[in-house]
Amino acid sequence: MNALDESVNRAVPSQPAAAPEEFADRPSLAAGTRSLEGRMLARLLEYLGNPPLEFHLWTGERVAPPGIAPVARVRVSSRATLLGILADPQVRFPDAYSEGRLEIEGDLVQLLETIYHSSRSAPQPSTVRRLAERLRRPHVNTLSGSRDNIHHHYDIGNDFYSLWLGQTMAYTCAYYPAPEATLDEAQAAKMHHVCRKLRLRPGESVAEAGCGWGTLALHMAQHYGVKVRAFNISREQVAFARERAARLGLGSQVEYVLDDYRNISGRYDAFVSVGMLEHVGVDNYEALGGVIARSIGPRGRGLIHSIGRSQSAPLQPWIEKRIFPGAYPPALSEMMRIFEPWEFSVLDVENLRLHYAQTLRHWLELFESASGRVREMFDEKFVRMWRMYLAGSVAGFTTGALQLFQVVFAPRDNNEVPMTREHLYAR
Amino acid sequence: MNALDESVNRAVPSQPAAAPEEFADRPSLAAGTRSLEGRMLARLLEYLGNPPLEFHLWTGERVAPPGIAPVARVRVSSRATLLGILADPQVRFPDAYSEGRLEIEGDLVQLLETIYHSSRSAPQPSTVRRLAERLRRPHVNTLSGSRDNIHHHYDIGNDFYSLWLGQTMAYTCAYYPAPEATLDEAQAAKMHHVCRKLRLRPGESVAEAGCGWGTLALHMAQHYGVKVRAFNISREQVAFARERAARLGLGSQVEYVLDDYRNISGRYDAFVSVGMLEHVGVDNYEALGGVIARSIGPRGRGLIHSIGRSQSAPLQPWIEKRIFPGAYPPALSEMMRIFEPWEFSVLDVENLRLHYAQTLRHWLELFESASGRVREMFDEKFVRMWRMYLAGSVAGFTTGALQLFQVVFAPRDNNEVPMTREHLYAR
Repeated sequence: MNALDESVNRAVPSQPAAAPEEFADRPSLAAGTRSLEGRMLARLLEYLGNPPLEFHLWTGERVAPPGIAPVARVRVSSRATLLGILADPQVRFPDAYSEGRLEIEGDLVQLLETIYHSSRSAPQPSTVRRLAERLRRPHVNTLSGSRDNIHHHYDIGNDFYSLWLGQTMAYTCAYYPAPEATLDEAQAAKMHHVCRKLRLRPGESVAEAGCGWGTLALHMAQHYGVKVRAFNISREQVAFARERAARLGLGSQVEYVLDDYRNISGRYDAFVSVGMLEHVGVDNYEALGGVIARSIGPRGRGLIHSIGRSQSAPLQPWIEKRIFPGAYPPALSEMMRIFEPWEFSVLDVENLRLHYAQTLRHWLELFESASGRVREMFDEKFVRMWRMYLAGSVAGFTTGALQLFQVVFAPRDNNEVPMTREHLYAR
Repeated sequence: MNALDESVNRAVPSQPAAAPEEFADRPSLAAGTRSLEGRMLARLLEYLGNPPLEFHLWTGERVAPPGIAPVARVRVSSRATLLGILADPQVRFPDAYSEGRLEIEGDLVQLLETIYHSSRSAPQPSTVRRLAERLRRPHVNTLSGSRDNIHHHYDIGNDFYSLWLGQTMAYTCAYYPAPEATLDEAQAAKMHHVCRKLRLRPGESVAEAGCGWGTLALHMAQHYGVKVRAFNISREQVAFARERAARLGLGSQVEYVLDDYRNISGRYDAFVSVGMLEHVGVDNYEALGGVIARSIGPRGRGLIHSIGRSQSAPLQPWIEKRIFPGAYPPALSEMMRIFEPWEFSVLDVENLRLHYAQTLRHWLELFESASGRVREMFDEKFVRMWRMYLAGSVAGFTTGALQLFQVVFAPRDNNEVPMTREHLYAR
């Protein structure tokens, strides 16, 4: 009893725990919710603005906001699972799903969208916020901290990623010139879009920070005739990328360097970074800007592509804990700390939020097709965890909780930039 | 002597005033610079990184950095003028020019570009910075303060502005789809660009904040079939705009309201503001965002077009003092204070810096053609002051000291926004 009261207080700290009598005749509670746990859950749903979800408890009880057709059904297997969720829903709900202590009937993405919408309209009590701030405190991105964090996610195994990233092995937001484009087409279109934004010309040199499995570097070399030095601290990815470059005979045009972006040296015509900024940490943005400034000099240009937010906010804590330690998607105002201390002219910002939702839907589809194989490689828990991560990310982008910013910039007075963006759309 | 030393100390506070002997054999000083004033001026030029300018003093002396071909010649008419410039170059130089105590031979824009570049590379001593901060403290934009500030600039007379703004009377950055576009073509293209970015459809409603002489509102009504309520606190502009709407028979579609943007009421499909933000003041950005949020609701969209900076910095103090009291062009990070507190998704930022340079060149050309008429309406000082302002603004945009940001945004989870920007460039 005490433990339960405490849990509820932590989840809904601005409202004092009510005496059981108070619940009995509250009209917003579903009929038949009689156990204490059921009443607590109903209270949480009410607090979340009564999202259209139905919970089935291990006791056979059903809890749902009255008069609303549910978009999905959640089966909770035990009292301990429910208490965990009540105490810390953002982490314990996806954990319980991963561990099979929670089953979901209906569309997982839609369920998560519903939760995103609800928790947005719910008031954020200050203690919850403080707790969230504490939880968010990301793993520090020192040189060695970055290596640990990156290893956690990207060195799981190239075989695993190749099951669901498509031909390009690009693990970043694609660009869909038309809604019916396939994943591979959209990834190729994204790379062309980036290269056109940078106006790459044959013979130029490019520094790439955070190159993944090396696809963009190869694309730039093959299609735009540039020389690329691409940096990455993931050993597995760099090994994969080097092999690919050698196989394609591009070893002299593309050099993969197993090193941190902070150690980029030399002078280049352009700087590009697609999907690394999420791992940099706001405190390091000004230094990143300094690396770029010295790398491209007064006549260069650059592009940074990153997940972001509509306002400064912590990353969903489960994602930070289980999937991307040390990650933080910045608000645009925060991204400006890269550019403004060095007086870059920000030339173009494009928000590709809905493109990332579509990319993730494609990944999720491929992932589901390969889930048997993933289960063999890892285990069922891993499959469910990654399903939750991919589906939650779709919901993040469709609800605007996550954004995708592609920022083109140049030194302040570089006037050799195109007057209009029409060239990006020329056939 | 004491007064002079003090002036120099104020201009170059980090360096102690040197004894005259020290200058005698410094190689970077031009030969023949022998008077005290000449030595002080050479010192200032050296401090500014020796820009390629030649000064002719009232004594007949010439001061110029050695070995550099000057791009322009500056004739200084008196000791008092020079001392003023040494004490406070940013304000006293353009003042002296306006008052005819300074003559410039050569290209005024090029001269000002040179000064912009030089002062950028010069170190900013902290006392100069503090002084600048104090100078910049803009006239406060309360409701009545805003009226005074706006009256100062925009109520000079519609006749005056019609001499050099072209047919459209649009007093904001134009958009040049091709370099050879005329001013009027580029202003029309700008309005289409804005309307396309907003995806206006017939029958929709638009709130416009700061509508100038009403051109954009008329354009939206005529070409896109929308209803517009346009707000402006300049009495002269609103009277002009109403007359125009009546003449065009658009009185029922376009309503001009003589009121502050803070008093916008009602619900609209879109919000637009072109060239008002410069007069709003950063402290009012969050409130402006609130006005927008309540005006467009959860499914609307909006566009803000404003002069900006590559980093937070005071407006050139002479411009703030003589031309635009209360004005402040924000850095992008500052602009985000409009959007982020209300969780708007920033969809698109386009930098039109070089378009504004071209617009201003066209205005300057028309202004010069009409300078006889302007002299009759006002006086010679007014002509020179406005020439300095327009030429300085060209230089501001070509050197990147000024930027022009066009920002498209929508409520965070409005998914009825176009996936790509291709429609902006469709023929």
